Order: sequence, then C-alpha cells, then structure tokens
Amino acid sequence: MPNKSAEKQPLILVCNDDGIDAPGIQALAHAMTDLGEVFVVAPVDEQSAVGHAITVRDPVRARPWPFTGSDKIKAFAVTGTPADCAKLAVNQLLPRHPDLVVSGINRGPNTAVNVIYSGTVSAATEGAILGIDAIAFSLCAWHAEEYDDAARWAQQIARAVLTGGLPPGILLNVNLPDLPYIEVKGIEITRQARSRWEESFVERADPQEQPYYWLSGRFINLDDGEHTDLDAVERGAISITPLRIDLTAHDLLDEFRQWEWDKPT
Amino acid sequence: MPNKSAEKQPLILVCNDDGIDAPGIQALAHAMTDLGEVFVVAPVDEQSAVGHAITVRDPVRARPWPFTGSDKIKAFAVTGTPADCAKLAVNQLLPRHPDLVVSGINRGPNTAVNVIYSGTVSAATEGAILGIDAIAFSLCAWHAEEYDDAARWAQQIARAVLTGGLPPGILLNVNLPDLPYIEVKGIEITRQARSRWEESFVERADPQEQPYYWLSGRFINLDDGEHTDLDAVERGAISITPLRIDLTAHDLLDEFRQWEWDKPT
Repeated sequence: MPNKSAEKQPLILVCNDDGIDAPGIQALAHAMTDLGEVFVVAPVDEQSAVGHAITVRDPVRARPWPFTGSDKIKAFAVTGTPADCAKLAVNQLLPRHPDLVVSGINRGPNTAVNVIYSGTVSAATEGAILGIDAIAFSLCAWHAEEYDDAARWAQQIARAVLTGGLPPGILLNVNLPDLPYIEVKGIEITRQARSRWEESFVERADPQEQPYYWLSGRFINLDDGEHTDLDAVERGAISITPLRIDLTAHDLLDEFRQWEWDKPT
Repeated sequence: MPNKSAEKQPLILVCNDDGIDAPGIQALAHAMTDLGEVFVVAPVDEQSAVGHAITVRDPVRARPWPFTGSDKIKAFAVTGTPADCAKLAVNQLLPRHPDLVVSGINRGPNTAVNVIYSGTVSAATEGAILGIDAIAFSLCAWHAEEYDDAARWAQQIARAVLTGGLPPGILLNVNLPDLPYIEVKGIEITRQARSRWEESFVERADPQEQPYYWLSGRFINLDDGEHTDLDAVERGAISITPLRIDLTAHDLLDEFRQWEWDKPT
C-alpha cells in the first residue's frame, strides 16, 4: 500500500527574531523535522525588541534561503519583522495553512515584562491571531554556543501541543534554562513575574557636538510570589506561560462602569 | 497669599504615533493644558503599526520642538518609536515623574485585534509599565480634519482618571466616534472584539524584475456579542477598554498543569 502519511504530516512554520542565520533557529528547525514538514521564514537581519511591529508602508521581500544541514527544510529570508514573517508565510509562501508556529530559539530570556518587547513572542502571537497553535522559545543565556539541548525540549513541548491543541487566542511562551538536557528540573506552568526596568539613557555628544541618547538599564524582579517565569528558570526548570492575545482586563469592566465618566467639562 | 497651586499641578506627558505635527496630538495637548503642566514628546515621523518596538541598537535623538498655539506646552521631537518617546521622556526629558501619560489622538481606530499593532497604544502601555496612569485615544476616522470634539471628550476622560487613579498594570484604550461633541452617545466600558484580518499580499515585480510583497487586507469582526469596542463606536458611543500589561492567561494555568509535558522523546 502506498504510504500516504507524508501528505498528512503537520506543517510547521519556524520563525524568530535573531535572524535566519542564528544558531537558535537552526537547532529549532532541525528538531521540528521529526514532527512534520518544516518551513523556516525568518528575518534576514536581527530584529530584537521590535515588539509586534508590522511593515505596512513599505514592501517586504522574501528570497529562498539555503538552510544548512537538511534538505527536508524549506527556508525563506524576509526583509521584515517577525510578525511580517508569520503573516507573509501563512498568506503567501506556505503550501497550506500551517498546524503549528514555533518561534526561536531566542538568544536570551523573554520573561516577565520583556514579553511585551519581544520579537520572538510576536511571531508566535501573530500565529495565534491567525488561528494557529503557536509557541515562542527562548534560551536563558546570552552567549550560548549550542541550542541542541534546548531544541530537544522544544521538540517535546511542540509534540504535546500538536497532540493536545491550544485554546483559541492562546499561545505558549517557553523559557528554557541554560542546562544540559538531563539537568533540567522539569517543566512548570507559570505566570509572568511583575518586574520593571530601572532605565537610564546614556547621553553623549556626536562629532558635531549634537546630543544623542542610548537606552541602558537594569532589570528588576518585583515579584517574590510563587509560580513565576523568572522563578522557574532560576531554579533550573523550564517555564511555560500561556499568554492571551485579548488584552482586555475582563475582571475590571464592572468596576469601571461605576465611574462617573459623563460629567461635562 | 501666594498661589502655590502651580507647583502641584499634575504633569501630563503627551505622546502619539502619527508624529509630532499631526493634528490629533495638537488637539490633545491643548485640551490637557486645562488639567496640568503639559509636555509633548512624540516621534518626528509617523510610526504607525510599530507595535511595542523599542530602539536598543541605535541611539535616539530629541530636539525641542516649537509646538504651536500655546506657550504653556513644552515639546520635544524624538527620532524613535512611541515606546521610545515615553521611556526617554520619563527617564530623561521631564522635570519629574509624570502623573498621566496620554497618547493620540490617533488617526483611525485602535479596536479589536489592532490594539496589538498600535503604536498609539504602545506609548500608553509603556506608561503603565513605568507605573504611570495612561490612556490611549483614537478617533474612528481616517480623514478627520479636526480633533477638537474628540479632544474635549479626551479631557473629560483624563480628568476622571486623574481623580480616580487606575489600578497598577492597567491602561485605558479609548476609541472615539467621529461625531460632534453633543452627538456622542455616551461612554461605554467595553472589551476588545474578537476579529481578524483577511490578509493578502500584493505581489509585484520591481524595475529589476525582482518580486516584492505589500501587505493588504480586510478587517473582519468575528464578534456579535455585547459590550465590544467595535459595537460601541458603531453605535456612536465612546469605547473605553481597560487593558492589562500582564498577558498571562491566569485562568488556564491549572488546566495546562494537567498536561503530560515531561514524556521523553
């Protein structure tokens, strides 16, 4: 009997924000080949801290990219943001609607308030907006040289999501500790820690003696409660935080309805 | 007796994403002068659909801007995103921590899923992250020539927030119908409508016969429930949606804890 299962393989879109030649996306894409057909659609250049930016006033370009190490992976490099990559992939480049969007593996954590600034998370958010199960993966290390252990965990988590399916409007934000596979202290379901940046801008003068400012800052955890993303990775566990694309504070609607809004000026 | 109340006036930061010379920010800043001391810190150029992008790899510049019509308003134009403007203002440009951040008045609605892409909302989100009460204002019209009626409502809403104060981590997203002041059908507290973009990319060839793609699309409301932002403005009311900066799906944490994540591959 001819094997038709190939046609029914899940289609997996792999995005990131560190750029298509980053080691994290290499490891993630290869790990996904065990789970389905893999398309990589990622930015040509690093796009960190772009948040959920999309390109509307300029065109974007996509060109086939020789993704190394596997002829099972098709890849396109895009002149745009992570959210652009997900949009363009789903609407234009992929042969059919994907079953899963994975983004990463990011260089550095995307925990606590940093979720809002993250390009890695935004590609997964765009997947969720487009009605596709989506997961963002970040490795909690700034100078990691290999992502294979993290990718092995990512494969397990992606398999669980392909099996279980996510509720509509929900994506998963996964932060992985920088540990060998067997040293990871399990998987924990967490919430974003309350935190802030103690920011400063370095003020300098350019060669024409005009001032410019450069963002600098120190991250501060304000949350000593249980089950936070920061706490899990600090203890060597993998943090999985389910995120909503609906930002409405539903529990406060009735309270705000009691306010006196209509008093004329 | 000397009047010391001037020292105690609220300090109000005004940002936007349409750029510092847009008519919406002119009207909003002038409306705020009745409520406190006003600083405008806004992008030099239009920054729509930038989401919560921040500039970390490049410097940003700020220069004093001759904001027309009132010597009560101090203004700076910034070479950055709306979130950059809020950060730079609070950390560098303002004489003290502001009491309120208002963003807008945006040209066009920021309802439903578009909240995620909105630069206008992101300046207010940054305010909330920085621990400041914050409101985003958008006028539901693409070609409005005057924003004075909208700004009069914005002043009322800002006054209510200065009086009542917002809970931590909450900002307000306000969408105003394009109607004369007295024809507005009141203020409604709403949730984001479920919606999606039916997107397409226009594919063209450049003069060198290389392909490029341009994002295009049609917005679709998927939500016929009550009390949505889209529904309110369609009926001519002002929509106020409280938004959270914590994206965690708190109500799903226990459910995800039941999943079998740890099965080794």
